[in-house]
Amino acid sequence: MIKNKSELINLISNQKDNFPLEKSFYTSQEIYDLDINNILFNQWIFIGHESRIQNKGDYFLFDIGKESIIVIRGDDKINCFYNVCRHRGSHICVNKEGRINKLVCPYHSWAYDLDGKLIKAQMMPENFEKENWQLHKCHSKNFEGLIFINLSDNPDDFNEFIKPTRNFIELHGLNNAKIAFRKTYPTNGNWKLTLDNFHECYHCQTAHPEYCEVHSKDYIQAYGAGNNTGPESLEFSKKLDDWNKKTNKIGYLTGEYSEKKFSNFYRSAERTPFSKNRLSETKNGKPASTLMGYFNEFDGGYTTIGTSPFNSLLMSNDFATAFTFIPRGPMRTDVEIMWLVDKDAVEGIDYNIENIIWMWDKTTIADKKIIEDNQKGVNSKKYIPGPLSEMEKGLEKFKKWYLKTLLKSLK
Amino acid sequence: MIKNKSELINLISNQKDNFPLEKSFYTSQEIYDLDINNILFNQWIFIGHESRIQNKGDYFLFDIGKESIIVIRGDDKINCFYNVCRHRGSHICVNKEGRINKLVCPYHSWAYDLDGKLIKAQMMPENFEKENWQLHKCHSKNFEGLIFINLSDNPDDFNEFIKPTRNFIELHGLNNAKIAFRKTYPTNGNWKLTLDNFHECYHCQTAHPEYCEVHSKDYIQAYGAGNNTGPESLEFSKKLDDWNKKTNKIGYLTGEYSEKKFSNFYRSAERTPFSKNRLSETKNGKPASTLMGYFNEFDGGYTTIGTSPFNSLLMSNDFATAFTFIPRGPMRTDVEIMWLVDKDAVEGIDYNIENIIWMWDKTTIADKKIIEDNQKGVNSKKYIPGPLSEMEKGLEKFKKWYLKTLLKSLK
Amino acid sequence: MIKNKSELINLISNQKDNFPLEKSFYTSQEIYDLDINNILFNQWIFIGHESRIQNKGDYFLFDIGKESIIVIRGDDKINCFYNVCRHRGSHICVNKEGRINKLVCPYHSWAYDLDGKLIKAQMMPENFEKENWQLHKCHSKNFEGLIFINLSDNPDDFNEFIKPTRNFIELHGLNNAKIAFRKTYPTNGNWKLTLDNFHECYHCQTAHPEYCEVHSKDYIQAYGAGNNTGPESLEFSKKLDDWNKKTNKIGYLTGEYSEKKFSNFYRSAERTPFSKNRLSETKNGKPASTLMGYFNEFDGGYTTIGTSPFNSLLMSNDFATAFTFIPRGPMRTDVEIMWLVDKDAVEGIDYNIENIIWMWDKTTIADKKIIEDNQKGVNSKKYIPGPLSEMEKGLEKFKKWYLKTLLKSLK
Repeated sequence: MIKNKSELINLISNQKDNFPLEKSFYTSQEIYDLDINNILFNQWIFIGHESRIQNKGDYFLFDIGKESIIVIRGDDKINCFYNVCRHRGSHICVNKEGRINKLVCPYHSWAYDLDGKLIKAQMMPENFEKENWQLHKCHSKNFEGLIFINLSDNPDDFNEFIKPTRNFIELHGLNNAKIAFRKTYPTNGNWKLTLDNFHECYHCQTAHPEYCEVHSKDYIQAYGAGNNTGPESLEFSKKLDDWNKKTNKIGYLTGEYSEKKFSNFYRSAERTPFSKNRLSETKNGKPASTLMGYFNEFDGGYTTIGTSPFNSLLMSNDFATAFTFIPRGPMRTDVEIMWLVDKDAVEGIDYNIENIIWMWDKTTIADKKIIEDNQKGVNSKKYIPGPLSEMEKGLEKFKKWYLKTLLKSLK
Repeated sequence: MIKNKSELINLISNQKDNFPLEKSFYTSQEIYDLDINNILFNQWIFIGHESRIQNKGDYFLFDIGKESIIVIRGDDKINCFYNVCRHRGSHICVNKEGRINKLVCPYHSWAYDLDGKLIKAQMMPENFEKENWQLHKCHSKNFEGLIFINLSDNPDDFNEFIKPTRNFIELHGLNNAKIAFRKTYPTNGNWKLTLDNFHECYHCQTAHPEYCEVHSKDYIQAYGAGNNTGPESLEFSKKLDDWNKKTNKIGYLTGEYSEKKFSNFYRSAERTPFSKNRLSETKNGKPASTLMGYFNEFDGGYTTIGTSPFNSLLMSNDFATAFTFIPRGPMRTDVEIMWLVDKDAVEGIDYNIENIIWMWDKTTIADKKIIEDNQKGVNSKKYIPGPLSEMEKGLEKFKKWYLKTLLKSLK
Repeated sequence: MIKNKSELINLISNQKDNFPLEKSFYTSQEIYDLDINNILFNQWIFIGHESRIQNKGDYFLFDIGKESIIVIRGDDKINCFYNVCRHRGSHICVNKEGRINKLVCPYHSWAYDLDGKLIKAQMMPENFEKENWQLHKCHSKNFEGLIFINLSDNPDDFNEFIKPTRNFIELHGLNNAKIAFRKTYPTNGNWKLTLDNFHECYHCQTAHPEYCEVHSKDYIQAYGAGNNTGPESLEFSKKLDDWNKKTNKIGYLTGEYSEKKFSNFYRSAERTPFSKNRLSETKNGKPASTLMGYFNEFDGGYTTIGTSPFNSLLMSNDFATAFTFIPRGPMRTDVEIMWLVDKDAVEGIDYNIENIIWMWDKTTIADKKIIEDNQKGVNSKKYIPGPLSEMEKGLEKFKKWYLKTLLKSLK
């Protein structure tokens, strides 16, 4: 148990470079609560795609921590509300999704319009003023069809946040997409242990035959978990240079982004070539659906983006795999994936779900097992962080950002 | 987490008039533990009816908190014992109910008579004196067939406690009744959230079509959760006056009781007329069983009694609905209902169970859902108590009594 | 909740002679954690038999507290390792048992030989030295085929530990045995409540007809839970003397051992005669399998050994019943039993499993129920330790050792 703030500050400063975190960061309830309130709730995270709520009044619920967020399409925009009636606090929406024309609390029928304004409350005292009792809005932004929320009361500026990844995302036309498939992978591991796994590809050769079938060995070494996560590969650098030139010539975006100095944001992006003649992240390398966004032809490239530790986008020219990592407890994380295709693509004709989800479904199932076995060992009194390999720089980077962010939040 | 007594005292004094309680009262383990030990365990609560144990040696178990209470019929009275052997502490009765002629511990066969006296313990040291090791009695009282217990070591005087509701209860002849049906409604909500729901009828129109079918709109507004729980209704006052006169003339009790000053007790009682020509709390308003107690004819009246926050009796002339609210955890409450009819009424001939339980079964199922959705919203960081309506005065009254009682117990 | 060390020391010193422990010793998480770390983890406990892993590379896992121990046969001996990779802490073995030729972590393929030496770790930095990253060994000892482990970093000397029970164990040839059957009895009771039950035979007459069928009344009174656990029985003393003489004459070990002064060890052993003409601990008293160890003929004796509170061996001439008591939580204990027979005995011909397990399977199922009902009563606020009988001296002895050991560990 972490007894007080100074003990935790000490613990943070004792973490060794190039070693993973010590046990309590992966097990303690106290640190978990800080993670949620001081880190997760200060991040912009995307939690869905607008195609899920196409008509006015369509909504779905997103649960996070003890919060339930109503994501609902209003007259001209999507609104996000805390699912808490201003009267006695009841949940207002009690189904996972649906369509309504106003938000009526099932307890006493207090009714709010789709902008959250209280429009009906019977039998109230004379001095009661409806305008003081609007639904609590959750900060949100629909960017390219991705619905971002921020549970802070003073969120960072969205435009500043999205700036470095904006071009990479826009390239793929997600604002013209639809959800082909969604799946949740409940994982019995701390959220940071889950992300440690996602931030290194040292384990790929051991654990992910599907990933290694699609991606070349030199890519995996150098870029497997993003730029600067592995040792340089001259072989891959050469391929990347060639591909950049060719791709620039046909006019598509290339390049990469990673954070240079510490801030509240933890973002990355890059475009890299698939190996050989692959066009898409599928078993046989052939396209899985129709082209999306700016693409008029397949450029053989792969776009990988992290908008925060809690979200990643891995995109071929014809479909996107979008991850949301949702902490659920000190030793429990939900990994939610949605696969997006062009909104006009037709299932069974233009795309098959099996084909699209093949790699990341298999890979995430394998990772779930790995992370759970890792958590079990980390719980031991004999767990002592061991030295990181050359291919785990992504994990080290994430760890440093995490420790600094947590430390900052304590001050 | 509530860190200490002074923090809690502050919290208590910060609760606003005419607003529900703040979050921690509905969620914290610390406050829950105080509620159980300082409030629940100081109340007289009825937990069953004597008709369940008609013969000598008949018993049933009642669980509350970490306690199991043996309710058993002895030679000439009903005894209640803590289900704890005086030797090594084993439960003595391990079945939910049964008939026995002595209480024999299944571990080492220590045996007690039906008055709790130790009558056998083998192989004990020479200086062992049986008379020092009687079963721990739980204070109890059989009043009108209702079995009341009190888990305090120094309970309030029962006669003082029962005085203001005595006449209302006696009118209905529960000492000549039997249980027609029993049912438990496990509810994932704090006990106070559960009682908040029971102490107002503001939600009745939204949530309880059955209740609104049986009871008139003017009654619901004025008396729906008891006297002084809603705004006055001239219409209903008129009806009540007329009915009182008529009923007094035929010689039955009328009137109402509510606490005028603060004490350890929280009681209420009243007799009111049903709407139109209804005679009983049934779907069609027709009698559901044979007349009980002092009634020789149906008087069209309805008796509602609260003996403590944890018990209510809602009675027609021909059957009674008896509630026990049992806290089971910070966010868990069991609502137990037993329906009582005259002991000579014959099922299938004089009464049908379906008919009798119709309204409160449907209503309690609906309330369970409402309370659970309320609890989910109250868990949010955005839950802030909102203003109470004119129809939630019963909830406000209960809250004030609760806060005063808790505060007193801390001193 | 135990607030601090001095409060606990007070509590320890307040425990009364000849009464069982007070409630918190059976319920508190804090005391449970101390029990595990300060007591259980300082004991030599046997957790299996070598016949389970006959070939090089055969292993099984043993879970205890938050630890998973790999028990594996190496080149020339059995090794026990903490199941924690030295890299990022993953479990290395993820199946309950199996055969492997090296220990390869499923996460990043770090590989260890069967002695725990790291033999492969790819892509590590230049200054990385494999020899610094061996698997954490768990102290272990294969004695007579019984695999003992000790989770302390500075375990007591094994030879000193085993000395007083050595001859009793060796007599039975367990090093030439095999496991006939294994079974786990999950019991919802504190480990000390579970052992209290095992350390007295006061309850045998009430609860264990099978035990009372096999063992005579005078034995049960005097020796039912080991020597000095009940009042003397002249009748049994006489039988024992006669049997000792007869048995010494044919050359087999007799006698008994119990701790005379306080130490870290809590051991006992004795040889006693079965009643009448019984030869084995079976329903009809007839042999259940072929003779084991030094026995060339049945001597009508029964050997009972406790090597620590967490292990017991109850042995006939032809089979052994071996107990491991594994605390799993403040109110949860697993009782694991393995039945051992001579390794050359053939199932169906020389022995039947049903016959061998009959008494202790039935008895342990009964004890599970007894202990669980005891725990329920102990949770009550009315549980106060009661006086112990003449037949509960074993429980008193165990309690004293426990309290002294806990006290010592706090200093």
